[in-house]
Amino acid sequence: MKIGIIGLGLIGGSMAKDLRSRGHDLSGWDTHEHHRKMALDLGLIDHIMDLDEMCQLCQLIIVATPVSSIASVVSRVLSQLDDDQAVMDVGSTKRKICEAVRSHPRRELYVACHPLAGTEYSGPTAAITNLFHGKKNIICELEASSKSTAKMVIETMASLGMQNLLMSAEDHDRHAAYVSHLSHISAFALGTTVLNIEKDESQIFNMAGTGFSSTVRLAKSNPDTWSSIFSDNRPHLLEALDGYLHELQKWRDLLADDDQASMTSQIQDANRIGRILDGIELNVLKIS
Amino acid sequence: MKIGIIGLGLIGGSMAKDLRSRGHDLSGWDTHEHHRKMALDLGLIDHIMDLDEMCQLCQLIIVATPVSSIASVVSRVLSQLDDDQAVMDVGSTKRKICEAVRSHPRRELYVACHPLAGTEYSGPTAAITNLFHGKKNIICELEASSKSTAKMVIETMASLGMQNLLMSAEDHDRHAAYVSHLSHISAFALGTTVLNIEKDESQIFNMAGTGFSSTVRLAKSNPDTWSSIFSDNRPHLLEALDGYLHELQKWRDLLADDDQASMTSQIQDANRIGRILDGIELNVLKIS
Repeated sequence: MKIGIIGLGLIGGSMAKDLRSRGHDLSGWDTHEHHRKMALDLGLIDHIMDLDEMCQLCQLIIVATPVSSIASVVSRVLSQLDDDQAVMDVGSTKRKICEAVRSHPRRELYVACHPLAGTEYSGPTAAITNLFHGKKNIICELEASSKSTAKMVIETMASLGMQNLLMSAEDHDRHAAYVSHLSHISAFALGTTVLNIEKDESQIFNMAGTGFSSTVRLAKSNPDTWSSIFSDNRPHLLEALDGYLHELQKWRDLLADDDQASMTSQIQDANRIGRILDGIELNVLKIS
Repeated sequence: MKIGIIGLGLIGGSMAKDLRSRGHDLSGWDTHEHHRKMALDLGLIDHIMDLDEMCQLCQLIIVATPVSSIASVVSRVLSQLDDDQAVMDVGSTKRKICEAVRSHPRRELYVACHPLAGTEYSGPTAAITNLFHGKKNIICELEASSKSTAKMVIETMASLGMQNLLMSAEDHDRHAAYVSHLSHISAFALGTTVLNIEKDESQIFNMAGTGFSSTVRLAKSNPDTWSSIFSDNRPHLLEALDGYLHELQKWRDLLADDDQASMTSQIQDANRIGRILDGIELNVLKIS
């Protein structure tokens, strides 16, 4: 199948790499000329091709740009597609994008996706094989996509080893704010706090083996990608951040009072997250 | 060499395992009877032996209890040692412990250590081989230990694959508060925030692949170990937590104003932590 990918960063580049290795013909575009060239040099894509040409030649177009531009790119693509073509996006927020394309006359040729995979690195050089294997792909408002469009996207994501799950765009953005986006804010703020205070950088390095490296890992993430996501998901993220500030203020009070018994019970409470992460999987809407 | 370990949790148990595999004769003690038996059953130690007997029979005694009891255990051990014996601890805080034993008549037989290694798991079953390999061991106030005592401890830690570094107890606790202890508070609060809001636990599980799992990993850590560390290192930790709250409040303001340009520059600033973690190592006081 001829597949076009717009946005050749970590996600777009990794999808290109995996899809190309499965025998598809991959065309790619990125607003940064050096990213286009790098993607070609790294063998992520077969050809550099712009959006309009992709709309003429590709069966599936994947939009992997920062979330702030996804709705406009998807709309521009939709306006040029025939019935046997499809477009999907991989953005980390879904409500605003789904709203923006809802009344597009060709809406049924679009599938709104969020593959839950990534690393803290960015750009075409961050692209890795099997990034999506064993991970989940959230699909929103699938009822607005035609059956053949849905089938093409679901099969493509399944071919990367992903499990497709359904969720409303509103639910997706709320869960993503708490579980994913808040983690990023938490890591960015932790990174800055430690950088501000630790004038002697070698001490950060020396002490990093104590758990700091993994807690702060996400602080290496791409500035444009994430400021765009935060802005897009502002209402839910503000709510999540207020909840987090409340919990940290509670910790501050316990420390100020040296209330060790309450600290112990706060930690016991937080320990429950381990049991969830270690594998309870309930009520998952699986689609065939 | 006959070595005794008091406290058979993650750190004590892992040290026992590695030292035993290097041919030493390992005796162990823990206030929890089932931990003593488990350590013997798991082959972490050769014998169960109480503190007084260890002081008669072992050349080196390692104190690996929660930090709140380390000073009293070390003092009790010191009072019973001969000149050719030594005691060391592995606590995550150092100032209060060093102060408490400073005027002990046998102080020179003690070395204050903090091996910077661990996982989020606890108890004898969490003990793993090679936990310390390639990691750093901070030694505080080495000038207060006799040469032969220092030599025994430094060689033992080096035999586990550790690099020994010197630091003052005050500096150690300040760096540990910012780089290690604050990360734990940040993870405990993040875990609780997400548990409070996400009534549907399957959504936490589904979304965890987005970076949440690694950011919240430390929230699985042991309640007694960590409330004890937090209480002990209160002044530095309060300062670190205030710095963190300040940064998060800054993030809240940027979100409320939807100031995407400033969010981008905040992230660019936090990104610097990556360059440090990826390997700048300066001014490290190496000891032979």
